[in-house]
Amino acid sequence: MPAISGSDYITRIDNLKANVWVDDKPVTGKISEHPAFKGVINSQAALYDLQHNDSLKSIMTYTSETTGQKVGMSFLQPKSIDDLIKRRKMTQEWALASNGMMGRSPDYMNTVLMALASSAGYLKGKENCYPERLVAFYEYARENDLSMTHSFVNPQVNRAQFYFEDSDEPIAAKVIDTNDEGIVIKGARLLATRGGITDEIVVFSAGGIQDKANGFAFSIPSNEKGIRFICRESFVIGDSTFNYPLSSRYEEMDTIVVFDHVLIPWERVFYYNNLLVSNEFAMASSFLPFSLHQAISRQIIKTEFVLGIVQSIIDSINIGEYQHVQEKTSEIIIALETLKALIIKSEVVAKLDEWGIMRPDQKTLQVASNIFPKVYARFNEIIQLIGASGLISIPTESAFESPLKKDLDHYLQSKSDDAKNRVKLFRLAWELSMSAFGAREVQYERYFFGDPVKLASQLYYSYDKTPYVKRVRDFLTEE
Amino acid sequence: MPAISGSDYITRIDNLKANVWVDDKPVTGKISEHPAFKGVINSQAALYDLQHNDSLKSIMTYTSETTGQKVGMSFLQPKSIDDLIKRRKMTQEWALASNGMMGRSPDYMNTVLMALASSAGYLKGKENCYPERLVAFYEYARENDLSMTHSFVNPQVNRAQFYFEDSDEPIAAKVIDTNDEGIVIKGARLLATRGGITDEIVVFSAGGIQDKANGFAFSIPSNEKGIRFICRESFVIGDSTFNYPLSSRYEEMDTIVVFDHVLIPWERVFYYNNLLVSNEFAMASSFLPFSLHQAISRQIIKTEFVLGIVQSIIDSINIGEYQHVQEKTSEIIIALETLKALIIKSEVVAKLDEWGIMRPDQKTLQVASNIFPKVYARFNEIIQLIGASGLISIPTESAFESPLKKDLDHYLQSKSDDAKNRVKLFRLAWELSMSAFGAREVQYERYFFGDPVKLASQLYYSYDKTPYVKRVRDFLTEE
Amino acid sequence: MPAISGSDYITRIDNLKANVWVDDKPVTGKISEHPAFKGVINSQAALYDLQHNDSLKSIMTYTSETTGQKVGMSFLQPKSIDDLIKRRKMTQEWALASNGMMGRSPDYMNTVLMALASSAGYLKGKENCYPERLVAFYEYARENDLSMTHSFVNPQVNRAQFYFEDSDEPIAAKVIDTNDEGIVIKGARLLATRGGITDEIVVFSAGGIQDKANGFAFSIPSNEKGIRFICRESFVIGDSTFNYPLSSRYEEMDTIVVFDHVLIPWERVFYYNNLLVSNEFAMASSFLPFSLHQAISRQIIKTEFVLGIVQSIIDSINIGEYQHVQEKTSEIIIALETLKALIIKSEVVAKLDEWGIMRPDQKTLQVASNIFPKVYARFNEIIQLIGASGLISIPTESAFESPLKKDLDHYLQSKSDDAKNRVKLFRLAWELSMSAFGAREVQYERYFFGDPVKLASQLYYSYDKTPYVKRVRDFLTEE
Amino acid sequence: MPAISGSDYITRIDNLKANVWVDDKPVTGKISEHPAFKGVINSQAALYDLQHNDSLKSIMTYTSETTGQKVGMSFLQPKSIDDLIKRRKMTQEWALASNGMMGRSPDYMNTVLMALASSAGYLKGKENCYPERLVAFYEYARENDLSMTHSFVNPQVNRAQFYFEDSDEPIAAKVIDTNDEGIVIKGARLLATRGGITDEIVVFSAGGIQDKANGFAFSIPSNEKGIRFICRESFVIGDSTFNYPLSSRYEEMDTIVVFDHVLIPWERVFYYNNLLVSNEFAMASSFLPFSLHQAISRQIIKTEFVLGIVQSIIDSINIGEYQHVQEKTSEIIIALETLKALIIKSEVVAKLDEWGIMRPDQKTLQVASNIFPKVYARFNEIIQLIGASGLISIPTESAFESPLKKDLDHYLQSKSDDAKNRVKLFRLAWELSMSAFGAREVQYERYFFGDPVKLASQLYYSYDKTPYVKRVRDFLTEE
Repeated sequence: MPAISGSDYITRIDNLKANVWVDDKPVTGKISEHPAFKGVINSQAALYDLQHNDSLKSIMTYTSETTGQKVGMSFLQPKSIDDLIKRRKMTQEWALASNGMMGRSPDYMNTVLMALASSAGYLKGKENCYPERLVAFYEYARENDLSMTHSFVNPQVNRAQFYFEDSDEPIAAKVIDTNDEGIVIKGARLLATRGGITDEIVVFSAGGIQDKANGFAFSIPSNEKGIRFICRESFVIGDSTFNYPLSSRYEEMDTIVVFDHVLIPWERVFYYNNLLVSNEFAMASSFLPFSLHQAISRQIIKTEFVLGIVQSIIDSINIGEYQHVQEKTSEIIIALETLKALIIKSEVVAKLDEWGIMRPDQKTLQVASNIFPKVYARFNEIIQLIGASGLISIPTESAFESPLKKDLDHYLQSKSDDAKNRVKLFRLAWELSMSAFGAREVQYERYFFGDPVKLASQLYYSYDKTPYVKRVRDFLTEE
Repeated sequence: MPAISGSDYITRIDNLKANVWVDDKPVTGKISEHPAFKGVINSQAALYDLQHNDSLKSIMTYTSETTGQKVGMSFLQPKSIDDLIKRRKMTQEWALASNGMMGRSPDYMNTVLMALASSAGYLKGKENCYPERLVAFYEYARENDLSMTHSFVNPQVNRAQFYFEDSDEPIAAKVIDTNDEGIVIKGARLLATRGGITDEIVVFSAGGIQDKANGFAFSIPSNEKGIRFICRESFVIGDSTFNYPLSSRYEEMDTIVVFDHVLIPWERVFYYNNLLVSNEFAMASSFLPFSLHQAISRQIIKTEFVLGIVQSIIDSINIGEYQHVQEKTSEIIIALETLKALIIKSEVVAKLDEWGIMRPDQKTLQVASNIFPKVYARFNEIIQLIGASGLISIPTESAFESPLKKDLDHYLQSKSDDAKNRVKLFRLAWELSMSAFGAREVQYERYFFGDPVKLASQLYYSYDKTPYVKRVRDFLTEE
Repeated sequence: MPAISGSDYITRIDNLKANVWVDDKPVTGKISEHPAFKGVINSQAALYDLQHNDSLKSIMTYTSETTGQKVGMSFLQPKSIDDLIKRRKMTQEWALASNGMMGRSPDYMNTVLMALASSAGYLKGKENCYPERLVAFYEYARENDLSMTHSFVNPQVNRAQFYFEDSDEPIAAKVIDTNDEGIVIKGARLLATRGGITDEIVVFSAGGIQDKANGFAFSIPSNEKGIRFICRESFVIGDSTFNYPLSSRYEEMDTIVVFDHVLIPWERVFYYNNLLVSNEFAMASSFLPFSLHQAISRQIIKTEFVLGIVQSIIDSINIGEYQHVQEKTSEIIIALETLKALIIKSEVVAKLDEWGIMRPDQKTLQVASNIFPKVYARFNEIIQLIGASGLISIPTESAFESPLKKDLDHYLQSKSDDAKNRVKLFRLAWELSMSAFGAREVQYERYFFGDPVKLASQLYYSYDKTPYVKRVRDFLTEE
Repeated sequence: MPAISGSDYITRIDNLKANVWVDDKPVTGKISEHPAFKGVINSQAALYDLQHNDSLKSIMTYTSETTGQKVGMSFLQPKSIDDLIKRRKMTQEWALASNGMMGRSPDYMNTVLMALASSAGYLKGKENCYPERLVAFYEYARENDLSMTHSFVNPQVNRAQFYFEDSDEPIAAKVIDTNDEGIVIKGARLLATRGGITDEIVVFSAGGIQDKANGFAFSIPSNEKGIRFICRESFVIGDSTFNYPLSSRYEEMDTIVVFDHVLIPWERVFYYNNLLVSNEFAMASSFLPFSLHQAISRQIIKTEFVLGIVQSIIDSINIGEYQHVQEKTSEIIIALETLKALIIKSEVVAKLDEWGIMRPDQKTLQVASNIFPKVYARFNEIIQLIGASGLISIPTESAFESPLKKDLDHYLQSKSDDAKNRVKLFRLAWELSMSAFGAREVQYERYFFGDPVKLASQLYYSYDKTPYVKRVRDFLTEE
């Protein structure tokens, strides 16, 4: 089954019956009907359906070289700048359909897997490395349009610089055994977003491994024996898209993944027990440029959505004449155009890597990933500052169908909106900037590519400053 | 009945049966048992009980000059710097008991009324002004320990600079009639926090009045005929103090107040129909210095609470060694010490006003009110940046009593906390910085004294810069 | 004489004998030997010489369509994206030769004139407009490689919003008479940078004209009768490139231009006495996109220079390990990559205008012009914070040839530099960030395209936000 | 000779004939007539004269307990809060006379010495410590009104965290020998401001000592054999107070001090060769609270001066109506009031230390010292943003006495100033914010108490956060 439809996805996920816990209860029955999941599952399904929309098919899919089937564009291994542009258009089409609010729309993980598989050459001939299995899994995922999540953060027990876990019972997931069938994993990983509502969970090391038992890469079905997904509190408050236009659609649950003696069969092990590879592969591969390219393409659409909200508020209550309002809005415009420019530059100066893949320019995208976490948090603040008291006095939908209607219609009207439409707009602004859902979005975007403090250090270290140092040194020796 | 107890308060509020609407339904039955209100009503009751706590009595009450009864210290009309310090200690005692989270602890409105009544002299001999009624109401409130709310913002319909409301049906509350019994009010006011759970609602103009019908000052019982309180959505999610340590206790509802032909009897009308007084009284009175003094005293305790939370997180996951963590924490320390210093200075340089009242220094406190909205928003951001992913992976209380307990105990422990205590701490941090409740707190503190942009302008205009200009001009003429 | 050499330029400027005043004295003798001008004139000459450098000729010049001569690339009227890239390369070549420190390298004004002439079509058929003269002057300037300055700011007498000059004696330059020979100008313009060391001064309105007598466009030789250039204090302190590596080379003087009954002959009048045109032409023309494209291309090289200086300091005293040093340096990297991306985007999405000229995208470049003034001021601060006390203890060159040499050699060495080279580096950093010359650079870059507050407002107004508003409105009507 | 006059000071300094080098030349002749020093020496002399001004005597001096003579108030060892206030008034009187621009007015070092001597008890009974000599020197300095400088920074050779100097020839000053007469010092110290124009140079360790040979405290006359003061470039450009109102008066030279086998006689050695004391004494003593109290008292006056300049510009060109101008000015007001409040709080909560000295509250003042470096740099930026192009077009004084006068008078007038006065004002603003002198001021204030990054860390570590952590922990255990 190549590029799937929404109902394919829902059927598959419902059939998984992964071990997912919300509060103190396991999910039983169809997970697509569970209040915490149904919104996001339906929104995800709607994205898959776009693959079958005639007017979008050419954007959303391409023909598999191996099967001749139409497969998802997000699996495309780009060989040219045009391919990169195709990939961006696909991502932005999906982002448009979800206002950039789904950090884990299918293209994200598809891109990650594509990037890793496209760099499988790196693993060739290295100890305990199985590049062919990684490629095979990529092809399998592509031809079956698998949904995936991943996880690479360890539990936050002690963040001191020189802390090493030292306990009999592993906390950070590690290999505790190997046998004929595969490797056995015990321990936890943090923050598999959408854990339990994807076909597979991909686990790999992103560096910083000190004990080689903590380093590995594999993929495994979400319902594998021994895997438990422990959800945070759901931020779905209700179904009403008037009251909760975002969480009712886009609440991507975060989970702690517990591996309780999980056996990973050998054909799903991509590498293990190799400290160097565990620390280097993610960086040597095209994981970073491609996942950044996908993420920033989406974040551009999200920024447009924010700009649309802010300008709608400005129009509604007629505050466009104020210089500080103009200045705040221009901050969003500046961020938007900057992100757009960085994406374009990353494509224009893209280069083929040693495995023949056209990589968007990593340092350009790293810059974007240093910018977005800061501006996105600021966007929330700007919405709050533009909306002001209007973000507080916003009754829920049912009030408009109660005896209060007359009061509300009169007192909550604005210059360009009747009361109900104005409240609807302000509830959207409120949910984005002032709800638990909205705050989690800030945190999600802020830590998407890691701790912002570390992102700046990484940029400093990886950026080639020598030509500019040389220029200065040359200048100093001029007479 | 002088300084009341918590149960006095609850009984009175339950008996009020004010016309309060939550979503599409009026509150019926005891409001103190309604989920949206019971937490805050109980917390408020606990504050009143402190007035009867033997070890605090001398801090929380003083002897009424008129009745010899013990009345609330927040009603004290200060005649000396010592009186100001007494007032601050009282406010901070109440704030300590509620971690500074109750913007509308009783002392706030008591202080407002005290300040207005202490400036009643301003109204003497002016047209349509009744200073003696204001003083009488103050004494009545003091001797009966009335709880109050107030409201002075108009609905946010059109915020253009040159917009004047021009409709047959008033939107902003105005006097539409006067008769033998009193004045008749029609229209709405925004954001009476705690509307419907106070004995009285005080309404007065804070300036910016263009039509004299919009200018007035009165107080009226919350259950007066024609008054409706329309609540925003409640941010109370549940009773568990583990899950929601703040909203379960401190959710101070905001309401739109509708005046539907409300008759204000003459003895409760303090002024009306006098454009100059409507625009000047609030500023000429000691309203600003005293309400700032109360608010900032409270905000200091809230800042200490934030500092405690941040340092607890740092200790828990052992991140105190990082320079950027130190820097962020020092930002909170700097804000805390700055606020403390400004309060002290406002007292040290306090002066008697023309009516014999010891006013804390207004410009010093205005500076504090320019600082706090900015730093408080930053505090939230700092908590998010310090807590990082730890603010996401926080299950609810019941999970710890489920089969998940073992997993959670193991994987969510931290250096200095077992898993349950650590999650409890992080849920507190989450609720303060990442919940709908927490975001409303930011907005509340941000707009407490008005639009921050306007606060800066007011400070600019009201601050006497002439001595410094003169110094520069003198310097320029030196040889 | 097409693309000129440095000596051509010097000879011409020396022959001009424009009326230039430094402090209280007119410049007499060769201006190219005057201490305040010789550095910048020599640096400018060196730029012209690059036009005759064989390896750069193809970058710096192109073949004139009218004369078949090699003329300066900065005069090229671009018809394609390739032409834009050629223009950028030319600008960056000149910027490289002067480290981006010459805001008025010849390409700046050549670009301005090219842009205005390329939009001459706008003037066609309008009252008192002479597009053919503008085109003729452009061709004349191109074929003779004229150097030019311009001026469009009025004296800063009273900046209130509703101030209109109302005096018998004009302050802002205006047309006070017209006669058979031309128009007569009286009054002043502010801040003709390099006034008096260019062949011509171009004067035109950039909008904001209320009295049509203040609106005009012309060009006139700098030595025209009645023109006086009044210099600010020179920031050239000495010739030593060790002590003053920047001001000894790049001090571009700013002047007030006084027009004392200056007759502008008709063939040099491009328009006058037309309020609409005076207010619209600059914006309707491609002045903004092209001058922004030139300026930002140069600012990129300047940013690289700053990055080189900062990294050289880091290497010299070995402070690269500090997280805050990394973070500050990464700010520069982020700015650099952002500017590069915006330039590229402006070219990638460039469009032909109605007169067949390929305009780089204006809004993209406006974003860059909103960013650079802020980051450039921040660069200075970063240099100061990175250099710290090392920017204070920097003796001058002669000290190294005095009995102090031994002390200096020993005590001022650094990890990777001997004392003299280290001091040389730090003097460069000091002059860029802590001298009068450096501070003037900040102000120059900050106000290059106008008041930053207005730039943000202009961006807000000119940016098309409707598609995003529409998207939000559509989303709100979805079920 | 107790409290001296200006001429006493000048005579003494001229007689010193210290070994001071400017550029490549030693100062010969009277240093008070040397262009680089005469302005600041005269300004310093004017401060001393205030001690003999009848109306200020009681503020500037007090009666010595040992001699009954009038000695400088800055030597007062405070025993009460009143004494602290006396000290502040003295500092602010001197600061008023010099607009807070003299970081090294006599009270600074007098205060430092007073603080060290007042903590001499700490040295009692410790190895190689001589508290009685420190006290004796303090008394000698007080009774003779010695002027002093000090120095405690090592040369900036390699700032890596784990760098230790390891060379045969010491770079950082150290004890290389001891003999019957005293200790012998070789090496350099950075940035003795005013080095060579003070009677004495006080040298002591401020912590961070790894080799005990680098730790010591002594004072020695500036003309002691083997001491060389190597000046940075002078920022005095000329005598005209119109052109250079600040540098002509307040240029406090910075010097590198070279100790070339300098013998410190035993009676001037306060401690040496004691690692613990070298690292602890400065912090254990009242050095920090008293020097902060002096510095911040002065910085308050400097802030007032900045506010005066900014408001003068606003008035001059009539821009007070702009919201962003108001906002920027209010930033200065907020800083000013904050500093004033912190000083007052430091006095109000002052406590007697173990040696009976009334110490102003250190943590309160540390907060101020974290704030001022940031706001002072911002002040410069605000002046630049308020003054805009007006800071560029400012001719020098002589131009007003040249044929240009008529032009200047006409074109440089402003709303409230004639041209000459307006230029005078703008030149002051320019010199403060845009000259080499002004930039050095920023750096001086920024690093006055050390690297701002470290100041934040120190505040974090030294601030007692436990009560707030406890409050949070208690709250979490409440039901």
